Amino acid sequence: MNRMNKPQTILRALAPLMVALPLNPAWGFEEDGYELWLRYRALEGAQRTRVLAHAKVIVAPAGPSLTALAAVAELHRGLSGLVGRPPELAREIRKGAIVLATPASLPAIAKLDLDLASLGQEGYLLRATKVRGHAVTLVAANSDVGLLYGTFALLAAMRTGVDLAKIDVRSAPKVALRMLNHWDNLDRTIERGYAGESIWEWHHLPDVKDARYVDYARANASIGINGTVLNNVNSKAEMMTAPWIAKAAALADVFRPYGIRVYLSVRWSAPMELKQTATADPLDPAVRKWWKDKAAEIYKVIPDFGGFLVKANSEGQPGPQDYKRSHAEGANLLAEAVAPHGGLVFWRAFVYSQFDEEDRAKQAYTEFVPLDGTFAKNVIVQVKNGPIDFQPREPFHPLFGAMPKTPLAMEFQITKEYLGFATHLAYLGPMYEEVLQADTGRPRKGSTVAKVIDGSLDGNKLTAMAGVANIGSSRTWSGSHFDAANWYMFGRLAWDPHASSRDIARDWAALTFSTDRKSTEAIVEMMMRSREAVVDYMNPLGLHHLMDTGHHYGPGPWVSELRRPEWNPTYYHQADRKGIGFDRTPKGSNALEQYAPDVARQWADPKTTSDQFLLWFHHLPWDFRMPSGRSLWDELIARYDRGVAGAGDLRKRWDRLKNVIDPRRHREVREFLLIQEQEAKWWRDASVAYFRSVSGLPLPKGHAAPPLTLEQYKSRRTPWAPGRAQPY
Amino acid sequence: MNRMNKPQTILRALAPLMVALPLNPAWGFEEDGYELWLRYRALEGAQRTRVLAHAKVIVAPAGPSLTALAAVAELHRGLSGLVGRPPELAREIRKGAIVLATPASLPAIAKLDLDLASLGQEGYLLRATKVRGHAVTLVAANSDVGLLYGTFALLAAMRTGVDLAKIDVRSAPKVALRMLNHWDNLDRTIERGYAGESIWEWHHLPDVKDARYVDYARANASIGINGTVLNNVNSKAEMMTAPWIAKAAALADVFRPYGIRVYLSVRWSAPMELKQTATADPLDPAVRKWWKDKAAEIYKVIPDFGGFLVKANSEGQPGPQDYKRSHAEGANLLAEAVAPHGGLVFWRAFVYSQFDEEDRAKQAYTEFVPLDGTFAKNVIVQVKNGPIDFQPREPFHPLFGAMPKTPLAMEFQITKEYLGFATHLAYLGPMYEEVLQADTGRPRKGSTVAKVIDGSLDGNKLTAMAGVANIGSSRTWSGSHFDAANWYMFGRLAWDPHASSRDIARDWAALTFSTDRKSTEAIVEMMMRSREAVVDYMNPLGLHHLMDTGHHYGPGPWVSELRRPEWNPTYYHQADRKGIGFDRTPKGSNALEQYAPDVARQWADPKTTSDQFLLWFHHLPWDFRMPSGRSLWDELIARYDRGVAGAGDLRKRWDRLKNVIDPRRHREVREFLLIQEQEAKWWRDASVAYFRSVSGLPLPKGHAAPPLTLEQYKSRRTPWAPGRAQPY
Repeated sequence: MNRMNKPQTILRALAPLMVALPLNPAWGFEEDGYELWLRYRALEGAQRTRVLAHAKVIVAPAGPSLTALAAVAELHRGLSGLVGRPPELAREIRKGAIVLATPASLPAIAKLDLDLASLGQEGYLLRATKVRGHAVTLVAANSDVGLLYGTFALLAAMRTGVDLAKIDVRSAPKVALRMLNHWDNLDRTIERGYAGESIWEWHHLPDVKDARYVDYARANASIGINGTVLNNVNSKAEMMTAPWIAKAAALADVFRPYGIRVYLSVRWSAPMELKQTATADPLDPAVRKWWKDKAAEIYKVIPDFGGFLVKANSEGQPGPQDYKRSHAEGANLLAEAVAPHGGLVFWRAFVYSQFDEEDRAKQAYTEFVPLDGTFAKNVIVQVKNGPIDFQPREPFHPLFGAMPKTPLAMEFQITKEYLGFATHLAYLGPMYEEVLQADTGRPRKGSTVAKVIDGSLDGNKLTAMAGVANIGSSRTWSGSHFDAANWYMFGRLAWDPHASSRDIARDWAALTFSTDRKSTEAIVEMMMRSREAVVDYMNPLGLHHLMDTGHHYGPGPWVSELRRPEWNPTYYHQADRKGIGFDRTPKGSNALEQYAPDVARQWADPKTTSDQFLLWFHHLPWDFRMPSGRSLWDELIARYDRGVAGAGDLRKRWDRLKNVIDPRRHREVREFLLIQEQEAKWWRDASVAYFRSVSGLPLPKGHAAPPLTLEQYKSRRTPWAPGRAQPY
Repeated sequence: MNRMNKPQTILRALAPLMVALPLNPAWGFEEDGYELWLRYRALEGAQRTRVLAHAKVIVAPAGPSLTALAAVAELHRGLSGLVGRPPELAREIRKGAIVLATPASLPAIAKLDLDLASLGQEGYLLRATKVRGHAVTLVAANSDVGLLYGTFALLAAMRTGVDLAKIDVRSAPKVALRMLNHWDNLDRTIERGYAGESIWEWHHLPDVKDARYVDYARANASIGINGTVLNNVNSKAEMMTAPWIAKAAALADVFRPYGIRVYLSVRWSAPMELKQTATADPLDPAVRKWWKDKAAEIYKVIPDFGGFLVKANSEGQPGPQDYKRSHAEGANLLAEAVAPHGGLVFWRAFVYSQFDEEDRAKQAYTEFVPLDGTFAKNVIVQVKNGPIDFQPREPFHPLFGAMPKTPLAMEFQITKEYLGFATHLAYLGPMYEEVLQADTGRPRKGSTVAKVIDGSLDGNKLTAMAGVANIGSSRTWSGSHFDAANWYMFGRLAWDPHASSRDIARDWAALTFSTDRKSTEAIVEMMMRSREAVVDYMNPLGLHHLMDTGHHYGPGPWVSELRRPEWNPTYYHQADRKGIGFDRTPKGSNALEQYAPDVARQWADPKTTSDQFLLWFHHLPWDFRMPSGRSLWDELIARYDRGVAGAGDLRKRWDRLKNVIDPRRHREVREFLLIQEQEAKWWRDASVAYFRSVSGLPLPKGHAAPPLTLEQYKSRRTPWAPGRAQPY
């Protein structure tokens, strides 16, 4: 140990020990990620002066609802932090005030030519204007929820240097139902959760409303999330019992002022498991009655209950097909039960049968397209972004555009089950954007997935986007600082599926790190590159589903012995001595036939298929000539190595930001980036070792041999990796 | 919804929404329990002035060790909070400085007649004195760890109004090994844990050293804890593999500067399960070699590894008896492996066999006393406080005093498996004190359990106390604000087993709530009454082990059908038409014979047996006349109701403190007290319903009938109550 005699040296040496010491020890506060993007650090200098002029007084609706109070509370909290003093709450409008107003609360704003009608029920505007002769910052909406959304937007504007004297912003959501899906179990474990256990303290609900629930609601309201499914789609029957409904009701009470409705995942066989019916046949009168009564029971304690989310006849879950009924008959049973109360049913289209030899990528389409138009009016069919399962890259799901008579919800995965858990930095914005901007060709060219989802193709109003949440008890909520960006991004894209993922990244980085413009851009650049690096080191060139078994942690391209054929990585890459890839052209499974002809055409020929999807749609020989001039084999290896370099590049870029990020968060992100580099190498090395054993080909020059043997990679075990699914 | 027009009314209405709003929004800080008793809130007025005079300068050992740096860091953090400015770190002693010194670092203190030698290696003194002519506050010790302990004591003194100009404190621990035992599993669940999942982020160890680990170390160092067993005594073989040893090593690195050594629980059959030996016979040479090599492997990466904790041949765990070897032969095998490295073996005496018809309370004694004197020098036999299993009240374990040739460690349970989880307020100080002050009568009168434990009866230096931790990822660490008091108290009693639990409660309350003296006393009074209330509403009059199955949540006195007879509550209360209680006198199981004759004598006669243990030692008729004049039956009912009243009284007392406790913590404690009241009623009602059905007797006047039927109480299910043990 070095001798340290000088006090300054001693203090410098303290640094690692002061890991948990606050930045400003006198005040006992240190950035730990808990505040997410809702940080209200004190502004300084000119920025503070500018904001202060508009931050002294709030005028809110009289007789305020809890929602309006939530908006006032956020302004109180935010302004206290930003300018160092709490705002005054006034009755009278005066110069410099922030005025929260709906036409109902302040008829005077009707004279201002604001075109509020076009904002709908949730939109808002922010405008520097005069009300009753006083120059104010107006937050206007048609409802108090709109005011709440506008409040968050105003606070974000203050933090990012927008000139309030000239502010003129309008925003209304393009998708009606903007939902989180929690895969939280009743024992607080989370399926595919990497951020610790569930935040729902089930054991103490409904009596204890943990402080965290309010912060959850605030974070979601700030990005426009207005619905949350509390429990895992692999649901338990007990969720439909009175004690658990009461727990859900307590959460609903906390969320309601923030505009967030509660939904529940239900298990199809619940009435039977609870020993209250003899069957779960959807056409059985006793079963129909059971669900009607159950809905009435729920709505008694949760008057604005959103409805049910259902995973049925999928991966062993029970469902209507157990009684030779269709998905539609099942969905419509539940829909009938909740319809009188204004409720909805989200019915998941994530189906694939172990008894069906058809290409897994085709099965959902095959099963659901014939049902188009047969679902009740309050049913939404929820479709994953791609036809397999949340892989780092998938083409858009063929169902988008193929069920014009049925409202379809997009289901994205925010938690990074296949993109490195909460360890690897991977901003998913480009991934979601890629899907949303994909042209389905149906009914015509230009019919992007975003337009299917937002109802603009057909005027459908029952529009929805759902994200499998990455939220847990971790202090950072999402398991890492950068994973919170994906939660933020999801909300922003649910609000506007046409938004730019780069712009969203920029907003998030600015709000989360308060960096100068140049540094913010540097963070954005890292984020925008990250997902592609993961694609490259895990599944390049359109490969998919090559992870190890069960926990999905690390590579397992060799796995071929699982109970269900389409759980095996070998099913997906089909590598052998001659070549690799899944032929989905007419020569193969013809999954292409499920796409619009114009879309299918580009993918029918490997020469016109982007390398993004090459091995998704084609089985090619190892010596197939790539556009780069390399053989497919050489290209594959090059991509793996490009991915590893990409991971290392993230870390180098982050190191260059060391002086502009607070020490603790910089260190925490860096620790994870170091793991990511190692795990990227592991993916690359194990995959290369395996594919080399299959192809028999030598590695191209300049690409190092994996340091271990294939057997060593195969024998790596991680029995307690987080997030495992429970047995069915 | 009330109309709220006045701004003040609006702000008052904000209160429930501002649940997570900081007390001082400008600074973004709110008490949430995370800081435990190490809060450094700004002092005010005269107290600040007094402390400031002694808080400006620190003089620390030159070339400081990490431990000395930890002390400096704590002073830096603490003083910055207390007086609002960080102290200066100086090389030269000057007036008003805090001087941290050992004889090695500052020989001048040898002249001060401090009698440092009697402080031993971990003790410290705090003294207002002159060093080199300057009036300073001296923190002196023989080691840097002593300085660290002294530093925490000094900061606590500053916070509780001690006059630093006159301070003169000496303290040295009376027990050498002061240990936490975490029952944390490798998947982050915690057996009998009610504070969320494990704080050990196994998946990211060893690469990521979460900030929380430092705060864990600080909290433990502040109460003198110097050892921690990281993993569940129901251990997994994998803990003995390189990746997991590396994770433990990373934690050891974080803890080392704080004087805390790491230990691991080991599974007896590990070498076989890891397929590296064919047997686990302790006398087998291959097994001996395996453990020797394993110890060497561990010590390579954890040079000061403490040693092993073992649960063997208990509740299905493997052990030496599987090979017809004794506990001593098993322990000595492991002891031999770690002895060259200075390691220890803690061998648990918690044994009871399903094949042994002897009274469960007798079995550990029967098994272990014959082994006295046969254990290797570095083995400690770890004994629970009582002979059954951590019940709300048990007589002291008969092994205390019965194995004079063997070092015995006390094992207490800090987590409240049988006292209401982390929901019920129950300060366990009086419970531990009761055990520690119990007179074993061996070798003579006055040989209290505390004197057995601290080695003062025989000069034994290998002394230890272990507490099954209540620590998890909950923001409050221990699952509730008041549960942290039990962690604090355990450390204080491990340091000095003769200390007063009331004094400890007072210190904890003052440090945790910063209340005025009167309010602090009111909190202490609540704490001192709480445990007895739990005894009354769960297991009055010496009854024990009446909880429901598996999760141990709620009452189950009717349970009689479990696989092992001594898991059944009916085994313990033996209630029937005629009477109730377990006869442990010579007429019955004669567990009394295991106590010293003088001790046994008081318990041999129900008339001389305190009501605390009446039904522990006696089976009595329902009409047995109690000292109160009531029949045993009437007394039983009265005690249950006294317990319920006691729970309600806690809440009433807490309500009277509303104005002196910060709103959030007051509310959070209150929410739990309300649950406690309900659960106390549930225990009472279910137990009364059951015992009434057995005795056939009417309830005494003034005691209400249970509102539900016995069947209803029996049919209550809580499948996902927290803390369940995993299947073996």
